Amino acid sequence: MSPAAKSKLDERRLCLHQVTVLQQWSTQQFIDGMQRHGIGAVALWRDKLREVGAAEVARMLKGTGLAVTSLCAAGLITTPDPQETVAAIDELKRAIDDTAAVGAGSLMFVAGGIDPRDKNLESTRKRVLDRLAGLTHYARAAGIKIALEPLHPMTCGLRSVLNSTKTANDWCDVLRADDVFGIAIDTYAVWWDHDLERELMRAGKRIINFHVDDWLSDTQDLRLDRGMMGDGLIDIPGIRSMVEAAGYDSYVEVEIFSQRNWWKRDADEVIRIVKERFQTAV
Amino acid sequence: MSPAAKSKLDERRLCLHQVTVLQQWSTQQFIDGMQRHGIGAVALWRDKLREVGAAEVARMLKGTGLAVTSLCAAGLITTPDPQETVAAIDELKRAIDDTAAVGAGSLMFVAGGIDPRDKNLESTRKRVLDRLAGLTHYARAAGIKIALEPLHPMTCGLRSVLNSTKTANDWCDVLRADDVFGIAIDTYAVWWDHDLERELMRAGKRIINFHVDDWLSDTQDLRLDRGMMGDGLIDIPGIRSMVEAAGYDSYVEVEIFSQRNWWKRDADEVIRIVKERFQTAV
Repeated sequence: MSPAAKSKLDERRLCLHQVTVLQQWSTQQFIDGMQRHGIGAVALWRDKLREVGAAEVARMLKGTGLAVTSLCAAGLITTPDPQETVAAIDELKRAIDDTAAVGAGSLMFVAGGIDPRDKNLESTRKRVLDRLAGLTHYARAAGIKIALEPLHPMTCGLRSVLNSTKTANDWCDVLRADDVFGIAIDTYAVWWDHDLERELMRAGKRIINFHVDDWLSDTQDLRLDRGMMGDGLIDIPGIRSMVEAAGYDSYVEVEIFSQRNWWKRDADEVIRIVKERFQTAV
Repeated sequence: MSPAAKSKLDERRLCLHQVTVLQQWSTQQFIDGMQRHGIGAVALWRDKLREVGAAEVARMLKGTGLAVTSLCAAGLITTPDPQETVAAIDELKRAIDDTAAVGAGSLMFVAGGIDPRDKNLESTRKRVLDRLAGLTHYARAAGIKIALEPLHPMTCGLRSVLNSTKTANDWCDVLRADDVFGIAIDTYAVWWDHDLERELMRAGKRIINFHVDDWLSDTQDLRLDRGMMGDGLIDIPGIRSMVEAAGYDSYVEVEIFSQRNWWKRDADEVIRIVKERFQTAV
């Protein structure tokens, strides 16, 4: 897609992350829904994929013409225990295989949180980076890109010790394999960052996924209380401008984890509102 | 205090923040409790102070020998509205006066969150910085230091657009008034930061307050669910080492907002545990 789509957002750039209607629809219903609503691209949620298996999801997708931007998520490789490490790496390889099986462009990588057995962040981050480096050949052979996704600093305890675009860039510098490792930017995770504009420019073509969602002023949960674009405090158009100035011109993916609101609403209504907000608040 | 106290933490460095027993004790009970437990330094909570007034609290403190490290907190000056700005600045000046009235060393400054009327973080941060600069003479005349306290990025929406030690340093560089503006470091706010060690060294003698508390793995609230040192995931001794390597050798302040646990416990028991953990987990 051309960068000319910058000011008015081309609706063909809309990608819906399955997690946005996680509680309402099975994967088959989700795929059918996308076609009914004329949405051409999706991101898939791996826990949902595992209910039926990657081969079955690949069969569901066949002939639909749907682009699959990514499979989300795998990683969680912060453990300091050697045996647990072997299991975690195996699981990550299976996720790479699943990504290839459903024809997704990238695998969303979530580092894992700090482990109570080693509270040192520097050594934890080093472990993750070493393990990622060890996966380079496996991912390359599978033809899969691994998208390093910084998560919000409030997830450092539970989900990810990768908490900024700067760290993602630093890791990419060390990994020296831009054909395999890219960066996923999510407005929810990065909006507070004092270094955001500079680090997005530094990332440039490393940015391979762009997620939008909003920060609610009365946020009630660290993970499952994200807002619809326009309902919160993030300058989403401002961040989109920065991401596009850095060279990104592909899909804009809507990813809303919302236990108290959107997961309780009729899925067709959610999608109708997503499409509206895509024009007015992204 | 001498830097020799580094390895074993001198218990004379313990300072208790009033907020740690906020729900249990009045200010008078708090002051009496500190003397009973042999704690020589406190930080005071401004909302509590306002219940009786600064003059009355100053009277309560007289003759106790208690050191008051700081009055916490004031600020919240992000509004883009001119009239609201006047009121907010006036309120901040009253807080400076209160700080002087109770003989506290510093006023804990909390910037304020993003305002829905201007979601641009850069312009918001610039407004705060301009307004701080305008307060330099007033604070200097009152003999009060303003401690810029970075709060965790998850508070960017509600409480503070100052979210990192780097930004605090950048602001101090611009303010050029190290006799007035210092930095307060709280383990809870900064532990995730990839730049922490470097920015603490850069801060050096600007660090005028150091707060300890812990990040619980099952954190349930963005503001009022902090943990006792040792109950969570933060490498508190590691951060203390960095802060001390940067040149800080004064009080270590325990500040725990805990709606679900510590605020519900007997205050004397809380303080007994604080004193234990001060030796084992700080």
